[in-house]
Amino acid sequence: MIRVGVNGYGTIGKRVADAVAAQPDMEVAGVAKTQPNFEAHTAVERGYSMYAAIPERAPLFGDAGIEIAGVVDELVADADVIVDCTPSGIGAENRSMYASYDTPAIFQGGEDASVAQVSFNARANYDDARGADTVRVVSCNTTGLSRLVAPLEEEYGVEKVRATLVRRGGDPSQHSRGPINDILPDPIGIPSHHGPDVQTIFPDLSIETMGLKVPATLMHVHALNVTLGSDVTAAHVRQLLESQSRVYVIPEGIGLDGAGRLKDFALDAGRPRGDLWENCVWGESIAVEGRDLYLFQAVHQESDVVPENVDAVRAVTDSADAEESIERTNETLGIGL
Amino acid sequence: MIRVGVNGYGTIGKRVADAVAAQPDMEVAGVAKTQPNFEAHTAVERGYSMYAAIPERAPLFGDAGIEIAGVVDELVADADVIVDCTPSGIGAENRSMYASYDTPAIFQGGEDASVAQVSFNARANYDDARGADTVRVVSCNTTGLSRLVAPLEEEYGVEKVRATLVRRGGDPSQHSRGPINDILPDPIGIPSHHGPDVQTIFPDLSIETMGLKVPATLMHVHALNVTLGSDVTAAHVRQLLESQSRVYVIPEGIGLDGAGRLKDFALDAGRPRGDLWENCVWGESIAVEGRDLYLFQAVHQESDVVPENVDAVRAVTDSADAEESIERTNETLGIGL
Amino acid sequence: MIRVGVNGYGTIGKRVADAVAAQPDMEVAGVAKTQPNFEAHTAVERGYSMYAAIPERAPLFGDAGIEIAGVVDELVADADVIVDCTPSGIGAENRSMYASYDTPAIFQGGEDASVAQVSFNARANYDDARGADTVRVVSCNTTGLSRLVAPLEEEYGVEKVRATLVRRGGDPSQHSRGPINDILPDPIGIPSHHGPDVQTIFPDLSIETMGLKVPATLMHVHALNVTLGSDVTAAHVRQLLESQSRVYVIPEGIGLDGAGRLKDFALDAGRPRGDLWENCVWGESIAVEGRDLYLFQAVHQESDVVPENVDAVRAVTDSADAEESIERTNETLGIGL
Amino acid sequence: MIRVGVNGYGTIGKRVADAVAAQPDMEVAGVAKTQPNFEAHTAVERGYSMYAAIPERAPLFGDAGIEIAGVVDELVADADVIVDCTPSGIGAENRSMYASYDTPAIFQGGEDASVAQVSFNARANYDDARGADTVRVVSCNTTGLSRLVAPLEEEYGVEKVRATLVRRGGDPSQHSRGPINDILPDPIGIPSHHGPDVQTIFPDLSIETMGLKVPATLMHVHALNVTLGSDVTAAHVRQLLESQSRVYVIPEGIGLDGAGRLKDFALDAGRPRGDLWENCVWGESIAVEGRDLYLFQAVHQESDVVPENVDAVRAVTDSADAEESIERTNETLGIGL
Ligand SMILES: NC(=O)c1ccc[n+]([C@@H]2O[C@H](COP(=O)([O-])OP(=O)(O)OC[C@H]3O[C@@H](n4cnc5c(N)ncnc54)[C@H](O)[C@@H]3O)[C@@H](O)[C@H]2O)c1
Ligand SMILES: NC(=O)c1ccc[n+]([C@@H]2O[C@H](COP(=O)([O-])OP(=O)(O)OC[C@H]3O[C@@H](n4cnc5c(N)ncnc54)[C@H](O)[C@@H]3O)[C@@H](O)[C@H]2O)c1
Ligand SMILES: NC(=O)c1ccc[n+]([C@@H]2O[C@H](COP(=O)([O-])OP(=O)(O)OC[C@H]3O[C@@H](n4cnc5c(N)ncnc54)[C@H](O)[C@@H]3O)[C@@H](O)[C@H]2O)c1
Ligand SMILES: NC(=O)c1ccc[n+]([C@@H]2O[C@H](COP(=O)([O-])OP(=O)(O)OC[C@H]3O[C@@H](n4cnc5c(N)ncnc54)[C@H](O)[C@@H]3O)[C@@H](O)[C@H]2O)c1
Repeated sequence: MIRVGVNGYGTIGKRVADAVAAQPDMEVAGVAKTQPNFEAHTAVERGYSMYAAIPERAPLFGDAGIEIAGVVDELVADADVIVDCTPSGIGAENRSMYASYDTPAIFQGGEDASVAQVSFNARANYDDARGADTVRVVSCNTTGLSRLVAPLEEEYGVEKVRATLVRRGGDPSQHSRGPINDILPDPIGIPSHHGPDVQTIFPDLSIETMGLKVPATLMHVHALNVTLGSDVTAAHVRQLLESQSRVYVIPEGIGLDGAGRLKDFALDAGRPRGDLWENCVWGESIAVEGRDLYLFQAVHQESDVVPENVDAVRAVTDSADAEESIERTNETLGIGL
Repeated sequence: MIRVGVNGYGTIGKRVADAVAAQPDMEVAGVAKTQPNFEAHTAVERGYSMYAAIPERAPLFGDAGIEIAGVVDELVADADVIVDCTPSGIGAENRSMYASYDTPAIFQGGEDASVAQVSFNARANYDDARGADTVRVVSCNTTGLSRLVAPLEEEYGVEKVRATLVRRGGDPSQHSRGPINDILPDPIGIPSHHGPDVQTIFPDLSIETMGLKVPATLMHVHALNVTLGSDVTAAHVRQLLESQSRVYVIPEGIGLDGAGRLKDFALDAGRPRGDLWENCVWGESIAVEGRDLYLFQAVHQESDVVPENVDAVRAVTDSADAEESIERTNETLGIGL
Repeated sequence: MIRVGVNGYGTIGKRVADAVAAQPDMEVAGVAKTQPNFEAHTAVERGYSMYAAIPERAPLFGDAGIEIAGVVDELVADADVIVDCTPSGIGAENRSMYASYDTPAIFQGGEDASVAQVSFNARANYDDARGADTVRVVSCNTTGLSRLVAPLEEEYGVEKVRATLVRRGGDPSQHSRGPINDILPDPIGIPSHHGPDVQTIFPDLSIETMGLKVPATLMHVHALNVTLGSDVTAAHVRQLLESQSRVYVIPEGIGLDGAGRLKDFALDAGRPRGDLWENCVWGESIAVEGRDLYLFQAVHQESDVVPENVDAVRAVTDSADAEESIERTNETLGIGL
Repeated sequence: MIRVGVNGYGTIGKRVADAVAAQPDMEVAGVAKTQPNFEAHTAVERGYSMYAAIPERAPLFGDAGIEIAGVVDELVADADVIVDCTPSGIGAENRSMYASYDTPAIFQGGEDASVAQVSFNARANYDDARGADTVRVVSCNTTGLSRLVAPLEEEYGVEKVRATLVRRGGDPSQHSRGPINDILPDPIGIPSHHGPDVQTIFPDLSIETMGLKVPATLMHVHALNVTLGSDVTAAHVRQLLESQSRVYVIPEGIGLDGAGRLKDFALDAGRPRGDLWENCVWGESIAVEGRDLYLFQAVHQESDVVPENVDAVRAVTDSADAEESIERTNETLGIGL
């Protein structure tokens, strides 16, 4: 049993904890939080030991009726692997703490690539992370792009990726984020940081990304153009994507025409939190002109990195190879629509 | 076993079907749909027999790989009770079909009160519906208001209700509904139709409602003022509301400060589809000045009427009294946060 | 000629400057800004002398090709009156600077009432501000409420005001403000701070306000209930409101059914920036039941306080009485639709 | 004097009428409307003769206190040119009426290209429309794309255009349009209809467009990639675009970072209705990699086609050449920021 600690129990952390708890070879050593809000109460109900992420705030938990098992240092000491799910930038601050306890650490995509030895996507470069002390699971957008690039690269070769990322402004519960009624090039400069981030996974890839932010909360949507190494047909690409375990090719004619309905679909299917761990590629959108492939995909920012974190735990503990890990994660979570 | 047919399998219908399936004394006789979209596929996976709501469209289901059990008439003939969850106005058109098969029918709040013998809210007037042939479960907003008025009326007497209903523009998957960036008095005339609708449950109630529509999809929020029959304290009202099984009094200090976080809370708690069947009353908002009570509540339009429909099935079949039915519904669904 | 300085040239400041420039008895002594953004360029094109609000940043203006006339202290020294339009809280910090130059100062509603000797609404309490050294023009919402309360109080007496304020989340250009898809009671506690703020204008008024924030940028909308001192008819109230120079009673049947169309109407009418200086009361919504009046109004947060600032300048300089000032302001700006 | 009739006086029609009225060589023969809403009242105030677009509804205007000059047929008979600004599809229905009076007609981009002999963009193909009986001014998006393609094609040659169009869901006053909280590939199929529409102007252009719809009302934003015929530098492209009279290259560092602030800028500048007739290209975004150009631009859907309509009037009446017309239109409207 790999004992996994989760530091930072928000949008990503709570999902990672639940996913870890669902693995036969892992258990949740505990979760660390800064404050006893509603998510802390759910954590307790799920049976996760609670640790205070900020020692001085520990008494707040008691006041709120939540018993804590200790402070974050103790969790780090106790765990075999720590998954840091704190807000962007805090992970880097925590790194030395993890190192001081010799606990391998997995960071999230909000951190700079320099936070860890390896940037990670299970489909693309699992082996690079085997036995590493520090690994960074790339961001939701980069994960979404990597899952497409990997098979396209293997099958056809990729000459150039051009991606426009139409990003949600904030997650559903982040009510202080905007915009309310605007379309923002973000960043205005081209390429956006997303391209270089994909290159942490595919160092030789030629990729240009343009980012925007819009007033929506459910999913990011990517408009993608990939110039492939050889001539292809849309049908062939579709088949390839359908064969990827973490890509869902949306069938035509069933009304799944945007993020709202995709989320409804996931909720109807009984997915926990309505999570969509898979890239959702519109089958109807897959178009080819010569070696140029075009498609739309939606990416659920709150959950697509979750299975990647689970795989990263196996990679750093070198307890399974890529195929085994991905298959086990998929099966336990119920990935595949 | 009460065999319940569900005609119209959209936002409300699919939830009603699942809630019926969870009852020990009921089973889903089948569901009728107009088209084989993604919701139809989920219905099949859940094991519900599928009927074509529009006979001419029956072949579309076969084309989409969905086997149908027949057309809606057959479902109506077969079922002990039919729950009509079709869009506003269609229910009234369906009434004679239900009558022709002598199948008791439950309609939704989108229909005029005249569609049925009784307008229904389990907490307020269950008995009126016992043995009725036709019952209308009142709308999400009226349900939300009735659940508050009933205990206040019983405990203190209600002199006057003044409610401002800040309504979501559409459900999360209804992407063709607006507004995008507007605040609309809707209707502009005062009182809105909601007041009279509450009076279908409380005929003698003095109530004025003002309705608005805003660019949000998650929940309605009500700003309420109730002039009570006697002097009260906020603490006493709070206790009263906390004792109501379908009212959740949101505790202070845990960050549940809007609809987004309430929905996250419900998803974290493992609720199917993140449903919030209960009125969510902000404890911190309960304020009293003399006999005037003020409070805010949020109402989940997609689900608050669902337990009411289950109770209505027991009422029309006269198979349980109010207390029994409400308790059984609550227990099987997991109502209570 | 009253020489008016404007410190803080954002949403409110730029409008106040233009309104001052339109007065025959005033001129713009200059405007102070913190940074040379696009609004600074417009200021220059309008011929306003530019002052650096933060002396250390003065060189930035030169770099951007904007000549400055000095730093804010010089503007304060030079002006007969200063209108502080800086963000909430900064006004209070600036107060001692204004005092040190003996320059009478007008603050905005983002400041606490304690920032000034008098809280001000031209229609309601102009005389209180005559000759004052410091005056605070109350917020957009309080201004909107005061303009209704004043005539109702005079004509019928007001027993109780209950107002639900459905507030826009941010101004159109404030893209970092949310919520994106939420309805937030804000504050959750009742009464909101708006009621006490109205009482800075009407100390004896009994008023309860409930505030919410929604994902819209154009206008606030108020749902109002006023218990009057005597029985009235809707027609009589309507006539009264139609006689108020800063209230626009929206006629029925011309399609002005929300904030979006009201703004379009103002833009079509050639209003600068599409400003709606008047309260916009839906005529159709005016309803009376006994002594209880109900109505909806929309308030343009970016501009309704602008004429009030102009009047406040005349009040502190004691250069006109209320009637004269209001009439002159209205005429020069073109108030009245 | 060219007498111009405007049939359909909504978002586009009212702007076209005002722009025509500003031309020294044109006058507004009258405008035709279907109903006497607030826009009709503004038309009257602007001195435009009002015609009933639907004869049976003529009496409604009288009832609303608006005197009409006749019905639309009379306007068509009287005018030298008619500009049809009715909703998509209605223009095609009106075509035979215009033909029956031998009145040259200009249609809008909501119509199929087949509605007219020529699809029109002043910068790109003015001469094609000289003396034509029917001309279609292409849509807001196509106009925005054409204004970029024309100079790029002339200067460098264009090998391929790839454009992602992030489109606003509805105009500010269209409150019944959505989505509220969604990102919709629209259409899902690739290429979208926009590419072929650009080819009505540039028949030989190789272009792929991907369209999306988001919950915003102010402007469309285009993420553009153009593979040019020769190597260029970003500086050279920027200079080229800055030389285009209907392109505004947004300077860095002045805070114009999205549609909200661009609109504020236009309003501050005193533009009627805050209109932005120019393509707004972010200077900072112009990036070049080999022969690949990338940039973001915002397009104001309500107004960018307005100067094109004015030029189209001169083209069909053959009363000026392209350069003369564009210059006159620009000067009278105040184009150029
Ligand atoms: N939300 C997304 O869409 C998303 C997607 C992919 C990756 N990420 C990345 O995941 C990471 C976490 O993001 P999130 O969205 O879950 O954020 P979040 O704000 O939802 O959760 C962060 C949690 O960390 C807690 N926290 C704050 N400071 C802490 C500290 N010093 N120690 C421990 N806990 C602390 C917060 O209280 C909160 O519970 C970030 O790097 C982010 O960039 C986020
Ligand atoms: N969605 C809400 O917020 C909400 C809340 C409370 C009550 N209601 C009421 O519930 C009823 C259903 O609303 P909904 O939101 O579930 O609508 P919906 O549009 O989500 O679902 C309606 C379903 O009925 C189907 N349908 C259409 N015509 C039909 C026909 N002739 N026969 C059978 N099925 C047909 C549609 O295909 C769809 O699946 C309405 O009366 C509505 O007013 C809705
Ligand atoms: N925007 C509204 O809806 C609205 C309505 C009524 C009242 N108010 C009040 O008006 C005041 C101004 O609000 P606003 O919306 O115009 O804000 P804003 O942010 O649009 O403008 C404030 C301006 O002040 C400048 N500034 C910041 N610090 C400064 C300093 N130290 N010295 C001088 N200038 C400084 C900013 O750069 C900006 O130009 C606040 O008190 C606000 O509460 C705002
Ligand atoms: N709004 C935009 O963003 C935009 C941009 C570019 C092009 N267009 C195109 O311009 C055209 C007009 O669009 P709009 O946005 O101005 O629409 P709109 O709905 O704002 O205005 C259309 C006007 O035509 C009137 N009308 C309806 N039926 C009529 C009839 N039979 N005869 C005469 N008038 C009638 C309507 O009452 C309305 O006043 C469409 O082809 C549209 O695709 C619109």
